[in-house]
Amino acid sequence: MITKEKLEAYCIKLLVSRGINRGDAKITADAILYADLRGIDSHGVMRFVTYLQRLDQGLISRENNITTVTESDTFAVIDGGNYIGPVAAKVAMDKAIEKAKKNVVGIALVRNNHHYGACSYYSSMALKHDMIGFTASNTAPLMAPTGGKKRLIGNNPFSFAAPAGKYNPFILDMACSVVAAGKILLAEKNGKTIPIGWALDKEGKPTESPYEGFEGGGMLLPIGEHKGYGMAVMLDILSGVLTGSAFGTEVKAIKDFSGKGSLGTGHFMAALNIEPILGVQFFKNRMDQLIEEIKSCPTAEDVDEIMIPGEISQRVYEERIKQGIPINRSIVNDLNELGKIVGIDDLLYIAEK
Amino acid sequence: MITKEKLEAYCIKLLVSRGINRGDAKITADAILYADLRGIDSHGVMRFVTYLQRLDQGLISRENNITTVTESDTFAVIDGGNYIGPVAAKVAMDKAIEKAKKNVVGIALVRNNHHYGACSYYSSMALKHDMIGFTASNTAPLMAPTGGKKRLIGNNPFSFAAPAGKYNPFILDMACSVVAAGKILLAEKNGKTIPIGWALDKEGKPTESPYEGFEGGGMLLPIGEHKGYGMAVMLDILSGVLTGSAFGTEVKAIKDFSGKGSLGTGHFMAALNIEPILGVQFFKNRMDQLIEEIKSCPTAEDVDEIMIPGEISQRVYEERIKQGIPINRSIVNDLNELGKIVGIDDLLYIAEK
Repeated sequence: MITKEKLEAYCIKLLVSRGINRGDAKITADAILYADLRGIDSHGVMRFVTYLQRLDQGLISRENNITTVTESDTFAVIDGGNYIGPVAAKVAMDKAIEKAKKNVVGIALVRNNHHYGACSYYSSMALKHDMIGFTASNTAPLMAPTGGKKRLIGNNPFSFAAPAGKYNPFILDMACSVVAAGKILLAEKNGKTIPIGWALDKEGKPTESPYEGFEGGGMLLPIGEHKGYGMAVMLDILSGVLTGSAFGTEVKAIKDFSGKGSLGTGHFMAALNIEPILGVQFFKNRMDQLIEEIKSCPTAEDVDEIMIPGEISQRVYEERIKQGIPINRSIVNDLNELGKIVGIDDLLYIAEK
Repeated sequence: MITKEKLEAYCIKLLVSRGINRGDAKITADAILYADLRGIDSHGVMRFVTYLQRLDQGLISRENNITTVTESDTFAVIDGGNYIGPVAAKVAMDKAIEKAKKNVVGIALVRNNHHYGACSYYSSMALKHDMIGFTASNTAPLMAPTGGKKRLIGNNPFSFAAPAGKYNPFILDMACSVVAAGKILLAEKNGKTIPIGWALDKEGKPTESPYEGFEGGGMLLPIGEHKGYGMAVMLDILSGVLTGSAFGTEVKAIKDFSGKGSLGTGHFMAALNIEPILGVQFFKNRMDQLIEEIKSCPTAEDVDEIMIPGEISQRVYEERIKQGIPINRSIVNDLNELGKIVGIDDLLYIAEK
């Protein structure tokens, strides 16, 4: 277990040691810790290690050269300048919220950005303003269109957050594939098979082999077959085509160190101001009513409780903010390695129980 | 086969005979025929028969008492007044488009409406203005939250339409369940089983029985399990909670003739003006590039062609606009019955081949 404070301070130090200004380092660490605190471990420090490796290889700019390309009262297009992703993404969501304050709805589009972490970090920014928040991002290609046998489209995640009254907010954060690639890699590591429906092999055939389903050239399967394929393309249109960023096969994988420069990731952000539309209190009462109805649904055998999107993450958050974040020892080693090479001497350590 | 013109004229006549004004009858017939022409048969005249039955039973208002509840430069809330659904939905999408012309983005929310037909009718309205269109609707409860055994949430369909250049527009039109209830009813009618993954029985257990999976009290399964459940709730928040309409179990089924009055259906509409964001021509070129990349994807065995969302519907449209619409004889009988009771004598007939 490592406390949030320790991990955050260390992440900031790692970034500052690379010449990132302290303010931007804080924003990035906050976005990273958001994920680790909520059990979205794949988008926390585990991914941050790769951010640092890319920084050290000169694949991410060390200069904040984020620019506003176009702007009006209701929308903005932001160029991320291939800087560490959470910074431009936060600038954009802040702009969407500001615009929604004055004009009910605000849209922000981000091009030429790096990986931005967990989507719900940005959609949730709208909550404290009593707004609905939405964001989507494209990713490197991981899925084939229905009937195809080549990776052409990302599994393009999105998040939608809406405030409730006495209950926690509704926060949906999902990608368009049945499972994440990480889950298939884990099955491979553990010598297990994967269920039919998770992935296709490189010939486009259903497979139970985790190797064939991913590293052997396979493809993740979209949720609802052609439906998830269509959704992934829709989200690429919003976050790639419309933003002026890369889209389809142009988007590079964060683990691909071969190509020079930007991943080309694009994001779409929207904020919707509830007060002028329906009144915040009335909306929140209705959300509570909906949540109560769902929570009180009779359960199938062996099911203890119906969960609302965001509820599991909230419980993990409450636990980890008190007890610390369980970080895999190999990730701690990676982080320490990234500290040592720039002469940081107060490294992270995991206390033995 | 019945020509589009004949069927449309007959639908208008049926509505006018019930006291619906000619303009609104035309809008409704256009929305209905949109579905029949594109092979979305479940949302065409088949559903229109139920509209008429509800009109005749006094469950839909014959008066257009659609009102604008709140409005600003960027959004409007419309009360459908429990009138035939496509009219308020078209008013709303027109408003969203007008607002997007001036302010880049326009939102319209509809409450207290009747069934509005196929979602893509409304999202597609944005296309001729070179805009992106989006709409979602809630429906009567058909699915359980993950782990539950009671119908609590609609399968809440949505549609997203974006223009392309030399290719047909991208039009996604889908609901959050793996299949529509109609597909399960059809399997039952034909004495077939249904695959595991389509539905749960009334105990919340996977079933292959089409009866147990729907009419016996079962539930449709959402796409991607908890993901589709979360999406359906998200779309109910936008189209039910935020609009001030019914939501969750309050939304009534169109085939439920027991309750008096409104179904309580709500819709969410959005239009996004491409020109100020990226330039229409540049956007369309990029859409063409994305479509070409997808269409040229190598195919799996036994797959002839990769399809883009909207492409199959477009092909059906081109065929049916020339050759007529194949309407099931029992639906023609239903429509003729609805004509006879108000003294219409030039009924529909299907020519024998």
